[in-house]
Order: sequence, then structure tokens, then C-alpha cells
Amino acid sequence: MERNLYTSDHEAFRDSVRKFVEREVAPRLREWEEQRLVDRRLWQVAARQGIIGLAVPEEHGGGDERDIRFRAVVMEELAAIGAASVQLGLSLTEDIAMPYFLDLTTEEQKRRWLPGLAAGELISAIAMTEPEAGSDLQGMRTTAVREGDHWLLNGAKTFITNGIQADLVVVAVRTDPSAGSKGISLFVVERDTPGFARGRKLEKIGLHGQDTAELFFRDARVPAANLLGELGGGLRSLIRCLPRERLAIAMSAQAAAEAAFGWTLEYVRERKAFGQPIASFQNTAFTLAELRTALDVSQAFIDRAMLALNDGRLTVEDAAKAKWWATELQQRVTDRGLQLHGGYGYMTEYPIARAFLDGRVQSIYGGTNEIMKEIIGRQLIRPS
Amino acid sequence: MERNLYTSDHEAFRDSVRKFVEREVAPRLREWEEQRLVDRRLWQVAARQGIIGLAVPEEHGGGDERDIRFRAVVMEELAAIGAASVQLGLSLTEDIAMPYFLDLTTEEQKRRWLPGLAAGELISAIAMTEPEAGSDLQGMRTTAVREGDHWLLNGAKTFITNGIQADLVVVAVRTDPSAGSKGISLFVVERDTPGFARGRKLEKIGLHGQDTAELFFRDARVPAANLLGELGGGLRSLIRCLPRERLAIAMSAQAAAEAAFGWTLEYVRERKAFGQPIASFQNTAFTLAELRTALDVSQAFIDRAMLALNDGRLTVEDAAKAKWWATELQQRVTDRGLQLHGGYGYMTEYPIARAFLDGRVQSIYGGTNEIMKEIIGRQLIRPS
Amino acid sequence: MERNLYTSDHEAFRDSVRKFVEREVAPRLREWEEQRLVDRRLWQVAARQGIIGLAVPEEHGGGDERDIRFRAVVMEELAAIGAASVQLGLSLTEDIAMPYFLDLTTEEQKRRWLPGLAAGELISAIAMTEPEAGSDLQGMRTTAVREGDHWLLNGAKTFITNGIQADLVVVAVRTDPSAGSKGISLFVVERDTPGFARGRKLEKIGLHGQDTAELFFRDARVPAANLLGELGGGLRSLIRCLPRERLAIAMSAQAAAEAAFGWTLEYVRERKAFGQPIASFQNTAFTLAELRTALDVSQAFIDRAMLALNDGRLTVEDAAKAKWWATELQQRVTDRGLQLHGGYGYMTEYPIARAFLDGRVQSIYGGTNEIMKEIIGRQLIRPS
Amino acid sequence: MERNLYTSDHEAFRDSVRKFVEREVAPRLREWEEQRLVDRRLWQVAARQGIIGLAVPEEHGGGDERDIRFRAVVMEELAAIGAASVQLGLSLTEDIAMPYFLDLTTEEQKRRWLPGLAAGELISAIAMTEPEAGSDLQGMRTTAVREGDHWLLNGAKTFITNGIQADLVVVAVRTDPSAGSKGISLFVVERDTPGFARGRKLEKIGLHGQDTAELFFRDARVPAANLLGELGGGLRSLIRCLPRERLAIAMSAQAAAEAAFGWTLEYVRERKAFGQPIASFQNTAFTLAELRTALDVSQAFIDRAMLALNDGRLTVEDAAKAKWWATELQQRVTDRGLQLHGGYGYMTEYPIARAFLDGRVQSIYGGTNEIMKEIIGRQLIRPS
Repeated sequence: MERNLYTSDHEAFRDSVRKFVEREVAPRLREWEEQRLVDRRLWQVAARQGIIGLAVPEEHGGGDERDIRFRAVVMEELAAIGAASVQLGLSLTEDIAMPYFLDLTTEEQKRRWLPGLAAGELISAIAMTEPEAGSDLQGMRTTAVREGDHWLLNGAKTFITNGIQADLVVVAVRTDPSAGSKGISLFVVERDTPGFARGRKLEKIGLHGQDTAELFFRDARVPAANLLGELGGGLRSLIRCLPRERLAIAMSAQAAAEAAFGWTLEYVRERKAFGQPIASFQNTAFTLAELRTALDVSQAFIDRAMLALNDGRLTVEDAAKAKWWATELQQRVTDRGLQLHGGYGYMTEYPIARAFLDGRVQSIYGGTNEIMKEIIGRQLIRPS
Repeated sequence: MERNLYTSDHEAFRDSVRKFVEREVAPRLREWEEQRLVDRRLWQVAARQGIIGLAVPEEHGGGDERDIRFRAVVMEELAAIGAASVQLGLSLTEDIAMPYFLDLTTEEQKRRWLPGLAAGELISAIAMTEPEAGSDLQGMRTTAVREGDHWLLNGAKTFITNGIQADLVVVAVRTDPSAGSKGISLFVVERDTPGFARGRKLEKIGLHGQDTAELFFRDARVPAANLLGELGGGLRSLIRCLPRERLAIAMSAQAAAEAAFGWTLEYVRERKAFGQPIASFQNTAFTLAELRTALDVSQAFIDRAMLALNDGRLTVEDAAKAKWWATELQQRVTDRGLQLHGGYGYMTEYPIARAFLDGRVQSIYGGTNEIMKEIIGRQLIRPS
Repeated sequence: MERNLYTSDHEAFRDSVRKFVEREVAPRLREWEEQRLVDRRLWQVAARQGIIGLAVPEEHGGGDERDIRFRAVVMEELAAIGAASVQLGLSLTEDIAMPYFLDLTTEEQKRRWLPGLAAGELISAIAMTEPEAGSDLQGMRTTAVREGDHWLLNGAKTFITNGIQADLVVVAVRTDPSAGSKGISLFVVERDTPGFARGRKLEKIGLHGQDTAELFFRDARVPAANLLGELGGGLRSLIRCLPRERLAIAMSAQAAAEAAFGWTLEYVRERKAFGQPIASFQNTAFTLAELRTALDVSQAFIDRAMLALNDGRLTVEDAAKAKWWATELQQRVTDRGLQLHGGYGYMTEYPIARAFLDGRVQSIYGGTNEIMKEIIGRQLIRPS
Repeated sequence: MERNLYTSDHEAFRDSVRKFVEREVAPRLREWEEQRLVDRRLWQVAARQGIIGLAVPEEHGGGDERDIRFRAVVMEELAAIGAASVQLGLSLTEDIAMPYFLDLTTEEQKRRWLPGLAAGELISAIAMTEPEAGSDLQGMRTTAVREGDHWLLNGAKTFITNGIQADLVVVAVRTDPSAGSKGISLFVVERDTPGFARGRKLEKIGLHGQDTAELFFRDARVPAANLLGELGGGLRSLIRCLPRERLAIAMSAQAAAEAAFGWTLEYVRERKAFGQPIASFQNTAFTLAELRTALDVSQAFIDRAMLALNDGRLTVEDAAKAKWWATELQQRVTDRGLQLHGGYGYMTEYPIARAFLDGRVQSIYGGTNEIMKEIIGRQLIRPS
């Protein structure tokens, strides 16, 4: 069934993305995974080729194009070669951090940061999660205290994507500990801020090219001009940006699942056992049929959600649905695909094995899938 | 997330369907279930109110409207009151038999049958399944032998929806036993055909208002003028009509699942245990969240499939996907909903209990879900 | 793998049970299902043949044999012919009510009731569940107020197995509404007690031979001598008897699942599709392999639990595990078995169809499976 | 519920195993994982402390004790510290290779090899799987051709556990290519055999301490005296040893699942979110209850299988059941446990993360779980 999602503009964009992926990403992927870091030059190359920075207004050097379908195209092409770490790094800047810089910034801030982001010169990150708080934003303990023209930040953040390389980190802190959810504010912490330190790169199950890290703030001096949005309005801003973040994860999950299915299909058509291709066993065929169906069904929903986001109508609940559903699907497809690869599925030389490792975190970050169900359930049972 | 499927025409149609359901169906539902038969007058009433016969060309008394979304509206409204037997009876004539009468008939046949079908005077059925063959069309044994201007049919069919009441039965037979799949033809067998007998109504788990029956042909004399489509072209015709039939089952499954969810949500919000509404337990909320998500995801796919059918682009494989996915969903939602009703879920006084009974066959007829997976899998593993 | 559970004594007992089932139960099963009642004479016949009353001390006319394995044998033999209603009626008296009569009674009460129970002259029932309270014992509202030598009971109970036929009903009531869980007591209400009325037989999904009913108490005058156990000790007694009740349900579920598997295996070996036995399709074989494994694994646990019960070591948590696990297994095996029967699986003429209907309540009564998980979970997370 | 499996002998043995694990294994585990190799000295230490070599007859330096429960104790203690690579290495020599050396050897061979195996001086491996054949033993292509007192082996084997370190490799080859399944024989290939080469250590998802490798034979000269069992009897020998191998995998899976559950329980009791321990959320409690039940149920079956093996009654089918069931359980428990750890579950610093990686292969090697279902299903559907 045709998806009917993309126009010829998107398909033209896909051509250039595909070239970018082939030339700039594929050849260096294993190297980046080994060095546990994607070369930051990649952001600049991507920006030059119009792959990132799309959403930035033209006056600041971008393409003024906020249609999320362009992002889906990038995700699909990166997933096709198993470049999950690269995709996550770019998605963090484009899907997750960018809305903060576009929608919460003053004109002055836009002038300071958007050109660098549009050019891929500035890499961004978001620091919400804390060692003791996980998905529970309200449990946040990092504080900021005003001192003249600055705020002094103290605390620690963890599991921060792009943590080592980020030039601009949006950090959520408590500016008024007595005000509860209304005492949280956002600051942009710049690379060389005194008192701001990166911890070690974390050893993870997968996403080995991703420089996920801990961040520490010890009397980190952040200019008052770096406050993002309203003082005390941080939680509201975070909540407003979450649907987009969660849909982005869902889109990446869908793309990754599709890629995993493709590798598996190829493998079982070629690999023989007991004298015939594995694909010709009914159990294999049924497994493939089930996964293929699940992929198509999920895709229809994700596509609908993308259009809703474009129209400004994607609700918190629908984003939560997309996030848990697609990430669970990704893990199932990857796991079943790995199993059908037999012993080779356990060898990291095979893309299905790396996809299994990379994908395991998708049901955890961006709010665990349990949090997603909590969000959806809470609204359902609310007395109407 | 809005479905964006229906236009104002469909919503206006929904109003009249809803009135029809309230006045004509709801009050007599239990009676029909007890007598194991929907009153055949209902077809006539439905036709008069423009609920059925829509697809028949105007010249033959219909509405000339083949947009399947109107059928979805009818299904949704019947599902909302748990009228599965009624919905199946109507769907058989509208979704499953009608395409044969519209697309395979000669002008003479159209003039003979379409007005009666459009007016609800003639009830139709399809007789494919045989006691020994099940979903395997190629195992069919009923034969037809030419004798002058007639054909003599011999054999038996089973699990025939509308079996007792049907005035026109499309029967698949072997006209050339030596020609394999090219020796199958379709005939319209009329009510009073000599040698055509109805067996007993079958005792089923649910769908108690449905007059599912066995049919017997013992030298049944069918006029040659009742041949439907080409001689020997029966299997091709059947295969061409199957996507529509399977999508119709999928649509009804989706509608039934939605209704079951609604009853459950209402129940758990009101029913208390341990001093609080059942809905307030996290396990209940998570179950609801999971089912709500699954419903929305599936709906997006079914909607896409309906539009594809309208455009003449629904493939055999995509219809198979819709069929197994939605019927499995229906069974899961109904089963989980029943469980959340506790002891009341086991009492047939509650709609969820009857829905559990009615829905169990959906993964079986129209080609079992295993056949659906076989169809999808076979195409996937075909060397490309 | 041999079960190693049964001794030659059990196997000898099995022979006589099998004869009893063949002669006394099988021929009348459908009739009892149609009349919605098992003939009460069956208890007497069963007692005469030593099938029930086993646990009653010899001095009161029983066999003084409390080894639960004998009960398992009866369950297995009744399950083999799909006699779920009969099994439930007998299990209620033997497994569920009997311990109350054996362990909570005074000598005087023993003399009054045990001989009748041992002889199958008295049929017993347990009335805990109330329309508004379900599995929540603490939500109970039926009261008993002392008046001289009697107590006046007021309230209603529902979903009472053997409700219509019971001669002795163990009823849980609040004797001290201010004492919370310590204000609940048990009374034996006898058949002709003034103010005690049976409601209608409930219309259920299955178990059509079971006379499940509502019971009403309107100033029902129960002699003080019918108090069972200590005044205010009712909840403790109930809780003490629950592991046995739940294990009995688990055992019956295991036996029913085994029978459903057997019918399915037989069917798929004989039924052909596409020119070969259904069993020869890999999907069928895998499904059978999965169910066969699940049955054997579960049986090992149930067997272990039976021996633990015999030794007085079966904990509340372990009984809860057995209950939810085995009943879920039963439903899965039955559902998958039905599906493999194709259209015939939906016809109540087939035992798999009736088993599907009978089995659906097993995850609900005796404490819903959700309550079981609550019990198990609560103990696990308790800070140690 | 008590397992009732172990006697005081086993518990005494457990004490010494625990000390061995604490002193010899735990401190060096991470180092071995980093160097991708368990120090071969460990076999010698284990042998000296009576942890391995148990099954070897006393006259050859062992303990003459073939009770498999001692092996279960070792597995449980190694699993408790997440030492999967170590456990696999030892299990390969003790459970999988040892039966070949005990049961297929001549007296002369016993004298040559058993003392070394008993002393941990000789490490063994089994080489069945080939790059093109996977779990399909009949697809084997490695050949041996007689030349005087030697056989010349040619071919390649892959996924060989202990591949780098093994001193004695039992290799399956075709000695008579025309004889089909009766042309397969086993040879013991010794470390320095000319023409025998180790390939690279394979890069795997987990089991990083395991030296899984490819092996190459290029005119490898193996003495005729190294033929194991009868010429042409290799397949029969392999098949005879498989139940034991598969039960060993099942036992290790059960032990690993138990350990993963323990880490998770500990974590959720301590970790807080939204102001309360994660364990206090109903979804967490239900998940734990489900896993705890599944563990207990599975353990009962595995225990029964161990006793059957001890008695020489474990069938191929029952071993297959144990293998797929327990390994699937292990993966589910580990995956659910990881999820409950939130972001920390993705960090390899946590044992649950490493267990997730180590465990993924268990459903693949020793015959994939699909092969297990094939074995079980084939026997079920066989016309009886």
C-alpha cells in the first residue's frame, strides 16, 4: 500500500540525503563507533548540504522549512545503513534541541545562536535527566542562584546525548526551589562556561558512536542573558517540546525497524538450512508476515502523527502512543530478525546485531515507555 | 488525533444510520438472537432508509455510491450497540455478495437481481466453504454438470452466512473437474431451485442472530442463465473479490474493538474495588493505555486501506494484513475488556460478554488468519 | 517425562473414576447443560462410588483421605470429556467448601453435616462475593445481627456456584460493622432457612450445566449454632482456605488445558487442507510444540504445589502463582486449539468450542488473576 | 515453595563453589571480559578445588560423581555474579564435551585424556557448526580421508566455544560422503596437530570473556587412534549427547534468569521515582509477580528434567522443551529487568546490562529454539 506521505520535494531531498549518507557517513561509521564519537565535522558537512538546519529561518542561515517529513527522510536513510549513533546525534540537534532555540529564544539569542546551529558549527544538547531522578522531571535537584548578571548552577545531569561535543547545552534547573513545578527554568550553558565540566563518556550497550555523558555544574557561571524562555517557565517549555521529541524517537524507531526487517528478509532468502532457503520454512514466512504487517500498520499511524505535528495538532497523548508503540515494535522486529540470523545474529559484524544493541535504549529515553502509558492512561481514566 | 477520514456527507449519513439503529435494530436485537434469525424485513427497512443498496446503480434502484466509508459508518453504529449478527448479515449482502452482482453480471442479470437487492427484497449469500475443504478453495468438490439449458449441481456447502434466509446464493462449483483451478465456476442459485435444500442452522459460540447454515445440492437444477461471469473463471472472480471481503471483516473488527473498549472504559470508571474506581489502579490504566494505542494505530492502517480500496489499489496482501491484524486486535481488546469487568464479564447480559462470543469467529472466516499470513509471507519470500 | 506424581493407589482410583465418568456423566452431559443444572442425584452416586466425600473422617462416613492427588485424578477424568460444569459443582463441594466443614466445625456440627456431605445428600456452596464488592472481601456489606438464639442476615451474594441446589451455604457476613476485617463471621445457612431466597440462575458465557445464582437474605433467621469458627474470625478462615481453593482451580485449569490439547492434536492429525494434514504445516507443528511444552512446564509446578499442599506448606503466594498461571495457560491452549479447528472450532458441537466457553471464567473467579498478581507482587516488594 | 531438589551434599558443595567464585572469579571477571579470554589457569584451580572434573572416574583423577545437580549449583553461583563467559567455558568442558570423553572413549583414550581433563590441564571444545550449515548437522561439509595411520581433515568450523584455548577439540567430519547421515565420524583433534589453525576470535554481542572462534583444517593430520566412537557413528553419538547439552543450557538459562530477577528486585526496591520506590508502582509489582511466577514454574520443570537426566530417562523432546523454554524465559526476565532499571539498564556497568548481552545467544546455540520446536512438533504430529 502506498504511503502517500511524501511529495516529489521529499523524494528529491531523499536523493541528496542518500548521497550524503553514502559519501560522508557510511565509510567512517565503524571508526566513529570505535572512537566512541562522531566527528563533529559531520554537522558542518550536513549543514552545507542542506541536510540539517532546515528549520532555521532564512535570515539566520537556514531553510525555513519545518515540515517534519524532511526529518523522516533523513532518519530512513541513516537507518538503512545502521547509523543509529549518527542519527541520534543529529536528531538531538535538529528535532529535540532546535525547537527550544527557535521558539523560546529572544531576537538577541536567535542572532547569537541560530547561525551557528544552521551551519553545523554549534552542536547542541539537552540536559534534563539527573542521576537520582530519571524520567521524573519533578525530582530535579540542580539549582541556579542569581548573582548579579549571572546565575550560578550546581548539580549534575546524566545520560546526556552529545554530552561531550555539545557547544550549547539547554539545562533545566530549579531557580526557585520553593515554587515546585513553577520554579524550574532553562538556561543555555555554553562550552567554555567556568564551572561546567563533562564527566566520563558512559559505557553503553550500544550507540557506540554516541558520546553520551554526565555533566557537572559546580558554581557554573551562566550569563543571565542565557535564560531560555521565562523564568520559572521551564517545565511548561519542556512539556511543550516533548511531543516533538517523542515523535522523533518514534520516527527513528520506525525507520530502524524497517531497516532491520530488510536485512533479515535478505538474509533468510539467501541463507540455506536443510537444503532450502530459511525463508521457505513456514515459521520464517509467518514471522516475516507478522513483522511486515506490524511495520505497515505502525507506519500508517506514524505518518498520521507526522501530519498532525505539521499542523500543530499533535497531542501529548498521541505522541506518547507513537513513542511506546514504535520503539516496542523496533525492539521486536530487531530481536526476531536477529534470531532468524542464527549464530550470525550474535556477531557484531552483522548490522542486525548492532541494531539490536543500538535499539535497546529507545524504550527508555525520552520518557520510558512506562511513563508513556501513564500519560495515556491518566487522560483516559480522568472522569469526563 | 483526528481521523480525517470522513467528510460531512459521511457524518450526515451517520445521523440517519444512528436513527435506524436506534429505532429498528436495538429494540429487537435480543429477540433476534433468541430466535436465531434477524427478521428479513430489516433489509427492506434498511433499503428504504438508504442504509443498504448504496452501491447499486441508480437505474436499478440504488445510490450509485461505492465509497466504502459509508459502509464503515454503518459498521461503527451497529457495533456501538453490539449488533454483530445484524452487521454480519448486512455486510454479507453489501460488502461481500454485492460486488459479484455488480461486477460479474450481464445486463440481463442486473435487471433481474439488482432491483431486488437494492430494495432489500432479495437477501444474498456466498457459498464457497465445504465441509471437507475449509479455507482451501482448491479442495472444493461440489460439481455442476451441464444438461441442456440447465446445470445440475451436486455437493454441500457449510458455514454459510445468511444461509437460511438467502434468496440468491452465489455458489462456487467445479464445472470441469479436470481443469483444476480453471475448472471452477460461479452460479446464482435461487431460493426455490429444485434440489437445493438448507440444512440445520448451526449451533455456534456466538452470532446467535445469524442464520449460518449448511446448504445441500442434489441434482439442483440451475438455469444456464444463472452462470456468473465466465465459465471456468470462478476462482479468478473469487480471488478478485476477496480483498474487499477481507477489508470488510477488518473494518467490522475495528469497529467492534472500539465498542468493546468504550464499554470497558465506562465500566472501570464507575465500578469500585477496594474503595476506588478500578480505573484508578495502575494496571487498569496501563491496560487501557495499551489498548487505546493499539486501536488508534490499527485505525490509521484500516483508514488507509479503505482509501486504497476506493482508489482500486488495495492489494491481496494488504487486505490480508488488515484482516488478521484487526481481528486479532478485536479479540484482544474484547478479552481484556471482559477480564476488567470481573464476574460481570462472564454474564451474557453484559455487551462485553456477547461481543466476546460474537468476535471469536472473525479470525477464522473469510480465510483464517493463518491463511492471511501465508498469503503475506509467500509474497515476501518470493525471490525478487 | 514421567510425572512421577501418582502411585498405584491413584491409578486404581482413576479406573473407578473413569467408569463413573463414562456411565454416570458422559451420557447426560448435554442434557444437564440444556437444563442449566446437573442432576443432584450425581452427588449421591459419586459418593456411593467413593469419588467424593473422600476427605470426610471415617466416623462420619468418609474415606479419611485428604491427599489432594485423588482430586486431581477426578478433575483429569472429567476434563477429558469436557464436563466442566460437573467438575466445578463437585469441586466446589469437595475442594472449596469441604475444608470449612472439616476444619472449622465443632463436634456437634460435624455430626450434623458431615454424614450428609459424605453421602452426597447435602450439596454445599460458599457465598462470599457480593454484587458491589467482587473480589474485594473487605467491601462486603451483608450483615448479621444477633437476636436471641439466632442471627438475622441481610444482604445479597452473587456468582454463587451451586447456588440453586446447595443445601448448606457458607455465608460470609459482617457481625460487627465497626470492627473492619475483624468483624466478619461465617454462618452455615441451610436450605429452608426463612428469609433466604435464591435469585435467578445467571445467564453465563459457558458452564451451562452450572446453576450459578444470586442469593438473597432478608432477615434470614440462622441459628447461632450455625456459626462456623470464631465470631469475627471469618476473614481469617477465608484467607486460610483460599490457597486450597486456588490450587483446586489451577488443577482444574491444567486438566482442562490438557484435554483441549488432546482434542486439537487429534483434529489436526486427521483434518486435511491443501492436500495434507493440518498437523504437517510447520506453523501448526510449532504451535503444538509450544503448547505441549507450556503444558508440561506448568504441570511440573502444579504437581509440586499439590505435594506442598499435602504437606501443609502451600503458601498464599504460591497458590496465587498456580492459579493465575494455569488458568491463563488453559485459556491460551483452548483459544489456540479452537483456532486450529477452523470453522468447526466455532461450533458448539465440538468440545473445544464448549471448553472455550467454560474456561473463560477461570481467570476471574476465586480472586481475579489481577488479584493474584497483587498478592504475589505485594510480598515481593515488601522491604525485607 | 521449596525446591526440594538439593540434599545436604549439594549444599556443602555450594559453600565451596561460592568461595571459589568469590576468590577466583569475581575479582578478575572484568579483566577477562576486556581481554576477551578467561585465563586458562582457572580450569586448574577449579579442578583442584573439586569444582570441575567431578564426573571423571576416580581412577583417572576425578570424583566419579555424575549427578547433574552439582553442575546446577556451579551454574547458580556463577550466574549470581554475572559470570556468563566463565560459566559457558566451564560448562562446555564439563557438560558438553565431557560425556564424549567419558562414554565414547576406549580405555587407551581414557588414559590419555581423562587425567588432563580431570586436572583442568586440558581444555576441551566441540566443533560441529560450520559456516554454511548452522544448526543443520546434515549440511556438514568438513571431510576426513584416511591416509595410513592418520586421517586428513579439511574444512572449517565456526562459533566454537573455547575455540582459542581448547587443547582437545571433538570435531565432526564426513568420513564417507556417500553414506549420508551414516558417514559422519568424530575425531579428537589435539592442540598442535599440523594443519589445524584457529581463526580470529569472533566479535560478539556479549560473552566477551568467551574465546569463541573459527577453526580451520587444511590437511590436518589426525592419528587414527583419535577416532571417537565408531567410524560412521558420529551423528548417532552427537544426537545421544544433545539432550545433556541442551539441558545444561536450560539450567544455565534458569540460573541467569534468577540472578537477573534478583538484581532487578533489589534495584526497584531502592530506586525512587516520583517520591516513592519504583517497586511500589502497581505496574512494577505486577511485572515482578509475573516474572517471579514464571521463574518458579520453569524451575519446577528444570528440576524434574535434571532428575530425569540423572535417571537416564531424559528424552530428546523433553530436553528440547527445557532448552527453548528456559532460554526464552531468561531473555524475557533480563529484558524486563533491564527496562525497570531505566537508563542505568543501558549502562554496561550494571550487571543487568551485561546479562542482557550475554544471554541473547542462548536461544541460538545448542540448536536454535526453532529447531527445538521442530523436534518437539515432529514427534507430536507423527501418526501414532
